Amino acid sequence: MATIKDVAEKAGVTVTTVSRVLNNRGYISQATREKVYRVMKEMQYQPNEIARSLIGKRSMMLGMIIPTVAHPFFAELANYIENHASSLGYKILICNSRMDQLKEKEYIDMLKSNRVEGIIMGSHTLDVHEYTQLQQPIVTFDRFITGIPYVSSDNYHGGVLAAELLIRKGCKKIALICGRRNPDLLGDLRSEGFLKTLNSKSLEPIVIELGSDVFENVHYERVVQNLLDEHPDVDGLFATSDMIAINAIKVCSSIGMKIPEQIKLIGYDDIQFASLMTPGLTTIKQPLEEMGILAVDLIDKLVAGEKVTMENKLPVTMVERSST
Amino acid sequence: MATIKDVAEKAGVTVTTVSRVLNNRGYISQATREKVYRVMKEMQYQPNEIARSLIGKRSMMLGMIIPTVAHPFFAELANYIENHASSLGYKILICNSRMDQLKEKEYIDMLKSNRVEGIIMGSHTLDVHEYTQLQQPIVTFDRFITGIPYVSSDNYHGGVLAAELLIRKGCKKIALICGRRNPDLLGDLRSEGFLKTLNSKSLEPIVIELGSDVFENVHYERVVQNLLDEHPDVDGLFATSDMIAINAIKVCSSIGMKIPEQIKLIGYDDIQFASLMTPGLTTIKQPLEEMGILAVDLIDKLVAGEKVTMENKLPVTMVERSST
Repeated sequence: MATIKDVAEKAGVTVTTVSRVLNNRGYISQATREKVYRVMKEMQYQPNEIARSLIGKRSMMLGMIIPTVAHPFFAELANYIENHASSLGYKILICNSRMDQLKEKEYIDMLKSNRVEGIIMGSHTLDVHEYTQLQQPIVTFDRFITGIPYVSSDNYHGGVLAAELLIRKGCKKIALICGRRNPDLLGDLRSEGFLKTLNSKSLEPIVIELGSDVFENVHYERVVQNLLDEHPDVDGLFATSDMIAINAIKVCSSIGMKIPEQIKLIGYDDIQFASLMTPGLTTIKQPLEEMGILAVDLIDKLVAGEKVTMENKLPVTMVERSST
Repeated sequence: MATIKDVAEKAGVTVTTVSRVLNNRGYISQATREKVYRVMKEMQYQPNEIARSLIGKRSMMLGMIIPTVAHPFFAELANYIENHASSLGYKILICNSRMDQLKEKEYIDMLKSNRVEGIIMGSHTLDVHEYTQLQQPIVTFDRFITGIPYVSSDNYHGGVLAAELLIRKGCKKIALICGRRNPDLLGDLRSEGFLKTLNSKSLEPIVIELGSDVFENVHYERVVQNLLDEHPDVDGLFATSDMIAINAIKVCSSIGMKIPEQIKLIGYDDIQFASLMTPGLTTIKQPLEEMGILAVDLIDKLVAGEKVTMENKLPVTMVERSST
């Protein structure tokens, strides 16, 4: 009696594809669908109901937990993740954690009970054991937990590039605005690379740490304003995200501080708005599209039971615009 | 014998809540869960397996089809939709259509076969019959189809406000940059309100229609550049989305055209970046949060079999900043 494997082989497709045709799941071209049906008819294939129900239980759903999709970085990342996921037949459940531990936990529980096949974590408020206890494949962004693959950009090198550029441009009074220093988060390496590079040139910057649970423009604005009030002679600023730097451009413009003549600004991410600002924002570009694609591919491999690389660090590039 | 309704009544909750507790779905506080269990025990309630399996088949999933979540308007809208949906126990499947008819159709088919309970449509490339044939409740943004509820802002009045402001500011050579004129899309009323108001003052603006399937900054930039090349004496510009207007700010800055002294700019939406630009962008504010909440509430009511208002037009406000 023909098995699903026989059908797949004869039709020249994978077992997964035959299953998708049977269960009407995923994106199957009409040509493939017809070919599979034709082969099933030829071989007088009778779906094994138990097997079919087991295979059919693939939800093809992935959960994506991010602080907020309204933040341009996460919006762009979510876009690339969804685009690639849908090309593989996956659907994306989007979850805004708003950096709230309870919400993040609720989402993880919800995702578990909804048979998502994998979880992409872009929000990191929970303790490590919450992640390691999960059955589902999980991939994190910018967080290193033993046993869980991560995707990140080369944060340390990004910080180095930023420091080198400010030094090269002759900055003497340098400031850093970053998230709360936290060695668990790989994004922290931006600050580390930046500070170590400056220190090696005997430069000691002003360091301002933001609360890690804040993504409010009003807050960023206030922090930059305070910095420039207390240190009006700052001539170089590295902000560990473009959103902070964009708010810095706004503040500088409002107080008549000329960029780059009086102060040079560097951000991090290269969200679309970096190039839309006046002056254009010099920034460290994270390869967002590649990162999104990679995260989905890692989950896809984990779901298939394959081994994957744990540490996935993608290269960054400096994009120089008019703010330096 | 106690029914699920009896349990609900005694526990002071809805039948849906009791069902969620039984099926471990949705966000139930620990207190509520304990109360429901206590009442079930007291009343010696035995779940009706058939009824339970039927109720348990509520997927509590909503599909959201938007052109792209990377676009700030849709990112902010998606954020408000997801926040409110999750407070009601719904999960959101996010679908980027990229304004591709085939993709939109695929998503609708996928959503149908995944038992989403409702679909929120922010992307409108398909013919009307594709929507009217759907079983699921559907709510559209900015599109009026008989029998399908829509949510929109008062587009016509937004256009009127923009025209009145440019007139009040003394503009004589006015331009409009809008999407392709299409009476099926309610967003088109922005242009209509704008043009009718200008015409009533015997003003005849230059009108530039963009392709409706483009959300590319490079394209917006080129269109604005061409406009200013051909008509360097334009002194007032209304763009029917902030993203177009933000690109106009960039172009004007790059060619040394002073805003607002030489040209006054008005956008539409009031995305977060409108206030981050220099100069700050005057714009017509869409009440995005209310619109997102309303869309979810409409679906929720439709799912419950209740009647809803078909035409849901929320008021807009003019937000004056430094670009006018």
